[in-house]
This record gives sequence, C-alpha cells and structure tokens, in this order.
Amino acid sequence: MSNTIGFFFRLTSFGESHGTAIGGVVDGCPAGIPFDMRLLNDEMLRRHEGSATTSRREPDAVEILSGVYKNVTLGTPIAFLVHNEDVRSEDYASLEGLYRPGHADYTSEKRYGFRDPRGGGRASGRETAVRVVGGAIAKMLLKQTGVTIRARLLECPCPADDDSTGGVVECIVEHLPAGIGNPVFDKLNARLAAAMMSIPSAMGFEMGCGFASAEMKGSDFRDNWNADFTTQTNHCGGVQGGISNGMPVVFRTAFHPVVTIPQPTVCIDKNGKLTSVVPEGRHDRSHLPRTVVVVEAMTALTLADFFLQRPDSFLSHLEQ
Amino acid sequence: MSNTIGFFFRLTSFGESHGTAIGGVVDGCPAGIPFDMRLLNDEMLRRHEGSATTSRREPDAVEILSGVYKNVTLGTPIAFLVHNEDVRSEDYASLEGLYRPGHADYTSEKRYGFRDPRGGGRASGRETAVRVVGGAIAKMLLKQTGVTIRARLLECPCPADDDSTGGVVECIVEHLPAGIGNPVFDKLNARLAAAMMSIPSAMGFEMGCGFASAEMKGSDFRDNWNADFTTQTNHCGGVQGGISNGMPVVFRTAFHPVVTIPQPTVCIDKNGKLTSVVPEGRHDRSHLPRTVVVVEAMTALTLADFFLQRPDSFLSHLEQ
Amino acid sequence: MSNTIGFFFRLTSFGESHGTAIGGVVDGCPAGIPFDMRLLNDEMLRRHEGSATTSRREPDAVEILSGVYKNVTLGTPIAFLVHNEDVRSEDYASLEGLYRPGHADYTSEKRYGFRDPRGGGRASGRETAVRVVGGAIAKMLLKQTGVTIRARLLECPCPADDDSTGGVVECIVEHLPAGIGNPVFDKLNARLAAAMMSIPSAMGFEMGCGFASAEMKGSDFRDNWNADFTTQTNHCGGVQGGISNGMPVVFRTAFHPVVTIPQPTVCIDKNGKLTSVVPEGRHDRSHLPRTVVVVEAMTALTLADFFLQRPDSFLSHLEQ
Amino acid sequence: MSNTIGFFFRLTSFGESHGTAIGGVVDGCPAGIPFDMRLLNDEMLRRHEGSATTSRREPDAVEILSGVYKNVTLGTPIAFLVHNEDVRSEDYASLEGLYRPGHADYTSEKRYGFRDPRGGGRASGRETAVRVVGGAIAKMLLKQTGVTIRARLLECPCPADDDSTGGVVECIVEHLPAGIGNPVFDKLNARLAAAMMSIPSAMGFEMGCGFASAEMKGSDFRDNWNADFTTQTNHCGGVQGGISNGMPVVFRTAFHPVVTIPQPTVCIDKNGKLTSVVPEGRHDRSHLPRTVVVVEAMTALTLADFFLQRPDSFLSHLEQ
Repeated sequence: MSNTIGFFFRLTSFGESHGTAIGGVVDGCPAGIPFDMRLLNDEMLRRHEGSATTSRREPDAVEILSGVYKNVTLGTPIAFLVHNEDVRSEDYASLEGLYRPGHADYTSEKRYGFRDPRGGGRASGRETAVRVVGGAIAKMLLKQTGVTIRARLLECPCPADDDSTGGVVECIVEHLPAGIGNPVFDKLNARLAAAMMSIPSAMGFEMGCGFASAEMKGSDFRDNWNADFTTQTNHCGGVQGGISNGMPVVFRTAFHPVVTIPQPTVCIDKNGKLTSVVPEGRHDRSHLPRTVVVVEAMTALTLADFFLQRPDSFLSHLEQ
Repeated sequence: MSNTIGFFFRLTSFGESHGTAIGGVVDGCPAGIPFDMRLLNDEMLRRHEGSATTSRREPDAVEILSGVYKNVTLGTPIAFLVHNEDVRSEDYASLEGLYRPGHADYTSEKRYGFRDPRGGGRASGRETAVRVVGGAIAKMLLKQTGVTIRARLLECPCPADDDSTGGVVECIVEHLPAGIGNPVFDKLNARLAAAMMSIPSAMGFEMGCGFASAEMKGSDFRDNWNADFTTQTNHCGGVQGGISNGMPVVFRTAFHPVVTIPQPTVCIDKNGKLTSVVPEGRHDRSHLPRTVVVVEAMTALTLADFFLQRPDSFLSHLEQ
Repeated sequence: MSNTIGFFFRLTSFGESHGTAIGGVVDGCPAGIPFDMRLLNDEMLRRHEGSATTSRREPDAVEILSGVYKNVTLGTPIAFLVHNEDVRSEDYASLEGLYRPGHADYTSEKRYGFRDPRGGGRASGRETAVRVVGGAIAKMLLKQTGVTIRARLLECPCPADDDSTGGVVECIVEHLPAGIGNPVFDKLNARLAAAMMSIPSAMGFEMGCGFASAEMKGSDFRDNWNADFTTQTNHCGGVQGGISNGMPVVFRTAFHPVVTIPQPTVCIDKNGKLTSVVPEGRHDRSHLPRTVVVVEAMTALTLADFFLQRPDSFLSHLEQ
Repeated sequence: MSNTIGFFFRLTSFGESHGTAIGGVVDGCPAGIPFDMRLLNDEMLRRHEGSATTSRREPDAVEILSGVYKNVTLGTPIAFLVHNEDVRSEDYASLEGLYRPGHADYTSEKRYGFRDPRGGGRASGRETAVRVVGGAIAKMLLKQTGVTIRARLLECPCPADDDSTGGVVECIVEHLPAGIGNPVFDKLNARLAAAMMSIPSAMGFEMGCGFASAEMKGSDFRDNWNADFTTQTNHCGGVQGGISNGMPVVFRTAFHPVVTIPQPTVCIDKNGKLTSVVPEGRHDRSHLPRTVVVVEAMTALTLADFFLQRPDSFLSHLEQ
C-alpha cells in the first residue's frame, strides 16, 4: 500500500528515477471536473524552477493517458506519465555496492533484500514529480469548492558553496468550510502530518502555534469565539478535534538539508568497510524552493480525499 | 474508517464517554501470543495515576470478550470492554446548546449535523483508554521481537491553581531491527506522525533533531557510519527514507494545555449568542502525565502493524 | 481484514461460539437514522425460529453498547453484544484432536497453526447471529431509501430422520434506483456474490437467469427496453455492467446440506489415524430456514455500503 | 476503489477503450521474482486468438514502464501500457445519445451523470487485456510456489451466423497447499466468486458440485478422509470454511451470450424514444474462448493476494 495515498481521491505512484518513466494513476476524481492542463504545467514549472542546478533543462512534460476527454474528467482513472529523458546511471557507478550516509540505500536493501543499483530507486527526489501532478489534479477539484492553498519558504539559511541547507515551509489553507475531517484516528491534522512527513527530508510538523503551545497556559491558548463563529486567535491552526472549524488551516513542516554534498563522503559496503567517495551526478544544494510546491500538492491530495468523504458538503458547494 | 487504525494489526474503537461502555476490537493479532493481563492492567493503572483529579476512583477494569483462551491469543478478533461506571451527564446540563471554545463541540456538529449532548462524545479524553488497551496488546506482540518503547514527559511547566499547562513527550524505541517501514507514502515516520497527531491535544511532531535540523548544514546533519552499521550521530532519529536503520527511533510530540479550566468561559450558541459559563464536571489541570502512556500505546500499535507487514522479519525473530 | 465487511458501512465481527459473547461493531452508519430495536429483535427471532432443534431456548438477546442515543444513531460506531448463555463445550470433548469431514477443523489449523478446541471457533453457524444484527442495522438505513429485500427458500428436499439436506435461497431487491454499483472490479453483482459465498455452506451464486443464460442465444437473452426505461424481461437480474438498472435485483444462492449428522462419522487425527465417532452436541438437520434471514442480512449490508458510496443518491432520497 | 483489486498483490486498472492507451499498475509484487515476458506475451496471444473476429490484427503489445530491471522484479510498482492502436470511434457515431439493450450505457450514465461517447468506456471487453497482464504477473509469482491454474470452456453451443452464444468456463487450481484463505467474510471461495463475477458477462459461479449440492443429502455430500489427508471425493471443491484443504480447487463460471449482434436492435434515448439500429463496429459472436484466459488471470490475481497474506507459507515454499 506504500505507493498509494488516499481512500476516495487516490494517487498511486510508480516508476524508478532511472527507468523509462515515472507516473501515476488518480482514481476517484469525479466526472465533470474541468481539466486544466495549464495549471498542471504551471505546477511542474514551479517544481522545475525551484531546482537551481537543473535549470538548464526543460521542465518535465506530462502525458495524460486516460480519464480525460475534451478537457473534462470522465470519472474514470486518470493515468499519467512523466518520461525520464535524461538518465545518467553511469554517475552512480562509483557508488555501486556502497551505502551512502543519510540516504535510504542501506534501509531499502534491509527492507527488500534487494536494491536498484541505478540511483535512489523509489527513494529519490524525482518521485515528487508524481506528487505534483496528482496534487495539480486535486487542485482542479478543490477549485470547484473555493478552497485555496498557499505554501511559502519561511526560513532557509544561505548554503555555503560546498554545503547544503534545510528550512521550514509554512502552508495556509483558506476558505475551507467547517466540518471537514474526522474524530479519533482519521483526524485532518493527523492526515496532514502523515502527508507532510512522507515528503523526502521532512523532519517535523506542527499545526497552528505547534511546539510553542506546549509552553502556553490554557487560558492563553484557547481560541475565544467571535459572534460570527470565527475565533479571536487561531492558535489551534483551524482544526479542533480533528475537524476544520472554518478558520484558516495553518501548519509548518521542517526539512533537513540535502545530504549529498560536493564533499568527501564516507560510505560503507556490505562487509562494513568504510570508503571515502566524492559524489558525482547532479545534486541540489537546497531542495527547499522545490519542496514548496510539493507541500501544496500533498495538502491538495489530502483535502480532496476529505472532501469526497463528505460529498454533501462538496456537492452543496457545487450546487451554489 | 475514522475509528479504525492499522492494516494488519487493526484496532477498531467504539463508545461514547457517557454511554454504557467504551471498548475496541483488535483484529490481526497472530495466534499463539501469550496474553499478559497484568501488563494490560499495569498500563491502565499508569493511565489512571497520570490523572491527578480522578485518583480517588479505582482504575478502569477491562473485560476481554473474545480472541483469548487459556491466556494465549487464538488469532481471532480480541474484543474488550471498559465499562463507564461513573457517568454524570448532569454536569453537562449547563452546557446544552453551547459550543465551548477550544473544544470539538462546534466542529463535530458541523461534521455530523448532530451532536451527542452528553459530554464530548467521541472527542473525549476517555476514548484514550481504548488506545491504551489496544497498545498493551500490541506490546504483547512486540515483546516477542525484543522491541522496547519508553516515553517520558520532557518539559511541562507547573500549572497555576486555576489554569492548565501543555508539554512535550519524547518517545524512544530500541532494538527495532533495520528494514521496518516503507518508502514513498507509507513511511514509518509518516505513520508515527499520524498516530501521534491523532492523540487529543497534539500540536506538533518531530523525528530526531526535528525542527532544529532546518538550521543545520548538510555536512553536520548527515549521520556518519561506524563500521558496525551504527551511526556516529542519530540526527535522523533512526529512520531513513521511511525505513528504520537499526538505530533507536526517537521522536517528540507537543501537546497544548487542557482548554477546560475552572475559570469563566465564553461559549457560543447556534445563533451566535455569547454566554459566560464556569464549567462543572471533572477536568484535569494537565493531561500530560496520562498522555505518556497513550504515546507509548500509539507507538506500539504502529510498530505492530509494520511488523506484521513483514512477517518474515517477525517470524525470524520468533524462530530464534 | 477477514472479520470486517464493507468500506463505508462496515461490520466488524468478533467472538468464538463457546466464549463469553459474540458481537460486532458497525462503523459508518450516518447520524440521525431511527434505531428500530423491534426490527432488530424480529430478525433475531426469524433466525431463531429457522433453527428447528434449538426452539426450546429463548432467542438471543442483543445488547447495544454505543452509537445510539434516544433511539437515534449518533454517527459513531454501533457496538453490540450477543451473549453466549448456553455453552456446552463438553459436547466437543470426544472430538478433541480430531478433524471432522466437511468441517473447517483441518483447514483452520493449517491456516493459524492453532485451533480453538471448543467447537467451531469462528467457523460456526453461531457467527451468523452477528451478521443478522449488522444486517438489521443496514435495513434501518435502507428503510430511509425505500429499498426492500425479501428472500425465500426456493427448494429444499425433506431431510430423512438421520440425515440433512441443502437448498437454494432466492433474494429479490425492489425499489433500488438505477445507478447503484461500480464498473470493473467492484461490481454490485461481484460484491453480492462475495457476500453470499461468505455465508457458511454456500456453494453457488447466480444473478437473474444465471447458469441458464449460458445456453441462451444473444437475441433471446438481451432485455429489451420499454419506453419507461424498464425492460420487457429481466434476464440480467437488474444489474448491467456492475450497476443497477432500476429493475428488481434477483439472485439465488445454493447451500450444501449440514455435514454434521447423527450418524457414525470417520474423523482423522494429526497423525492420519481414522476414527469413527457419533457426534454429540446440538446440530440442525437443515440450516436453510435460518439461512434465509442471513441472506437478507448480507444483502442489506452490501447495499448499505454501496448507498453510502453514493451519498448524493442516498441524500436525494432522504430529501424527498 | 472500483479500479483496484487485491490488498497485498494489487492491480489498479486504467484506460478507456477508445483513448490513447489502457494499462495498469501492479503494487505489492515482491522483489526478486523472475519476470517472464514470454509468459506474458503468450497470455496476450491466447486472449487475442480467442477473439475470432479480430484475428487479422496483431496481438496487443505490452510495454513495461517500471518495477522490473534485468528481468527481475524490484519490489516496486510494475506499471504497464497496452496501446490502443486501432481506434475507430466513428463506428459509434450512430449510437450517440442512445442506450443499447443489455449494455452498461444507461447504468453508467445513471452512476456518473456522464458518459464517454466513445464506445463502452470502462465497461468494455478491452478492459480485460489489463486483467490478463496483471494475471500473467501473478502467475510469475505463483510459479515460485508450484501452484498451477488451468481453465477450459466446458460447454458453449455453436452460435448461428447472426447470433451469439454464452457458455460455462471451469477452472482447476492444483498444488495449492492447505491453509490458504480466511474464515468469516474474506473466504477464498467468496473472493474467487467476486473475481469471477467481475468479468464482463458473468452470470453465475459455483464451487465443487455447486448448485447440485443443494439436492444432496449430508451423508452423500461430505467428503470423507483418506489417511493421507486427501479426501475420497471433492464435492466442496477444495475449500472448507473459506480455507483451502489441499485438494484441487474447482469452480465454474457461467457467462451470458454477447448482447451486440448483427441484427436490428431497439435502443432508447434520454427521452424514452425507441429507435431501431443495426450496430456497426467490430463485435465477437462469442467471447467465451477469450474469456478462458481472463478466468485464469482473475484466479491468479486472487491467489497471489492470498499467498502474500501468508508469507510464511509462501516463504516456506521458496525455501525448499
């Protein structure tokens, strides 16, 4: 199940970073939604431009295989491909048989008893392109409801020439009606946390005033009512008891710095022998600018799934 | 699906805080696991003692209805009840028709178009008793694997007499073998985040050095290898690419203070009329001591689910 | 997952036939449905009366633990118990260590590496009581939509004194609107087939003219239109391409005879030694009369699940 | 969920019969399974040759996009495409706005409020090509276990020149170890029934002696033991209590005749107006020869899913 996210609006992701193509299938998108190819391409461009060292290349072209006819969704699965045009597996030759520090090389092999020798396999930043396409389709659905999603890079120290840096991305969802989410296990905040923490390099997640709330008093923390059902503060970040309360949904995700840097790196082989290597291949000094659009995509996928769980509210929006 | 957690080791939770009983069903626990009723009762006692204002009562007794015979699991669903002995719905009479600030009263009604007038319904701290029972059963399974789980209250300012306080709970999982988890969406860290954020009052989650990693350089962050496949540091918190690496799994969860405090509280009714009320009923000034055992329970449920996803590693442990 | 059926309207079943209690949890039933305890008890009475040899006893009493308040559903999980009052495990003493022919004794032990020595464990006719309770709750939901479900015993040869007999149960669903079901894998007929074949002793399932259609010509089989969108015949049984067409949904399920009969029975033990035993304990000569209400229950559970998958049609019914 | 089948070995199907391509994603196939492209192409050829009227064309070429490297599975999702080379949507022009009798035209529009005007959309025989590819991959997994699957056309009256015919396909699974399946809802026979009834045109399903067992006496029906744990008869068809007993698994599926025949056909439009049309386009007189390989594919998908649910038995097979 690890390659599918969502229950009602489901994205199944496939493809190795150094194979023929990566892609996905969105199942559960209702029929009759205008399919906005330009929005989709714009999101792919945002992801591309956020990637400093890859700017010479064209952004990835997305091919839609099914589920759309005359720019409207059919209600059937929407399959799409992103071709891997620029495969340079040879860059990884020097790493054959070595586990890099801070990468999933060792853990993937422990998990599957097998490792794709060509780059990161499924544990690669390239996999996020599929999330961006799925998220763009989710945004097309959410557009019908008036919900808006905006993420921005909150802090991100300047990387040195030969080093990398992490950062924090804040995301704000506006115009989400009250009543979206669930109590107990399947809370809106729990699902947003899982979606964000599934993004490569994510290390932390907080809603509203988050970790700071641990040091607040109850009398200060609680968000007092206005007579129009808004609240005077938004410490809780727009979610109470796992369900949206009509205020903006606000959350932040912390990302660690890129671990592949142009410096000597001590890798380990199967027998525990340590070897120093200087990585070749293309690597970004910061993935943060690119991560902003991925945060929005995962948010859109999560919200689309909750909206379809309550088609009444969704339909009541459409009917207006 | 909001009342079920897990795919292979599944807990389904039921019961209103002011109904006859709360309880749950654990489905997927393998046959032949020793059922340790003492461990279960000890966990319930830890939860009880963590609750300052309720200490005069006896801890909740748990009744096992099925799935266990002669202290061994049968492989069939394990159903259990926790009876609600001390129901005082009248305490809530003054709140009828009112939405409290910081509670799920308003959002639940928006979600279901309906609200249980007796206390918090499903959005109640009492629901965590079911998590603790389910977690205890998960711990019985994990005991067979050698995995240990220990949470502790990291920081928790002293509450004033008439106010409440939040805090941060740290949890450390030891002896978890490398290779537990999944890539892409169903990452071990993503599932732990969702499990923690589903606990009432949770506001933030971080793995390893978490939010601090956003300000680190890549050269400092990456955990360098020792020759025995341990790492010199554990900044990532024991998970790489969504899969355990054999180091301790370390994470922290931030909780906001209890929002019901013995002070005048401005509630709102259906028509937007604001009314000041002083809450009656029993309420804790801090739920944090009680939350420690809930954090362990949710961790155990999450890990048991991942272990059963890879029965090979689980079975290889059992076979030794 | 083997103890849960449904995605939106979900029944989780628990309990051994010779344990303290059997029971279940219905999750996903919407809030605001009138809870008709009389309908539920009537269904349990129908099941009881269908069971010739057990007629001296009272029908099973059902205890509702949660999810219902003042005879209306809360939208939270509905947990219920059916206590096992009349446990006579000693009847099974003579069967200890033996696998009976035609029973799940051998296969269960192969599956779990473990067997409940007390009667049939989960593979017992008693488990169907939980299906009947779940089905009664599903019928309460369907009542809001106008859908009716009626099953009847189509053929059932008279059993001899010391032998048993099988039979065929036909079920007709009326007033089901067109458009319920799904294409491809999750077809209405496929889900009905699975629901029926999950009933103990089920051996065959057919829609409409079923096996007879294999010998028809296309020109005879196809159901021609009337101008009001009904069809002149109903060979397909009310489902086309996995989706209801507005005609009555008609299907039949074949059940094999009870395999425990008051005759010498050759059992086998773990070492392959054959032993002749005359079974004690209570056993019916025909389970067919009892099975009629179980067929209706499984049909109701299946249809409730599909209705909630399309809340728009469900809500449009409610709104009228 | 209607486009995905399986929990552990999952096939997600996509594509319209008149779009760019159809295809699928198999998720959950373990790493290290030899990928036998020849077996896959042979299955596609069997499907092609079973289709009398399409024999002039080449069989469909299958393109593997991911999940396989150097002819071995990687444990990652296996995505594949079957291109639609010969799209003649214009054949359907005369049917625009009309619902054919016996087709899913009317029910699909009722379900989605929308209909793909180009042929049958998802409700097309072409969709079964994806099942055959998925089934071929499942067969590669089952090959490691020794399980064999053989289906054959049991009866199939000769179609007249301008008419069509149905038939019954029998399938026999051999070398399936005892202990595969589950009790209660997720029974092996229930899942096989759902898989078979999801095939286009399926009308009935029976295990072992099926409908005939309804007229047998218990003393005749029950399968008596041999000392080697085989049984003297196999009336139950190899499954007891939802779990395999080590005997061959035997079941039959009845299919109705093709409903599109080269005869005048009375269609209906949105307003209830009846119109006689003689269908153009390519249509088979019998889909039965082609259906044999689809029955095997759905059987293989179902068994692969159950095998992965019990990796111990699967692994113990591999270890021999």
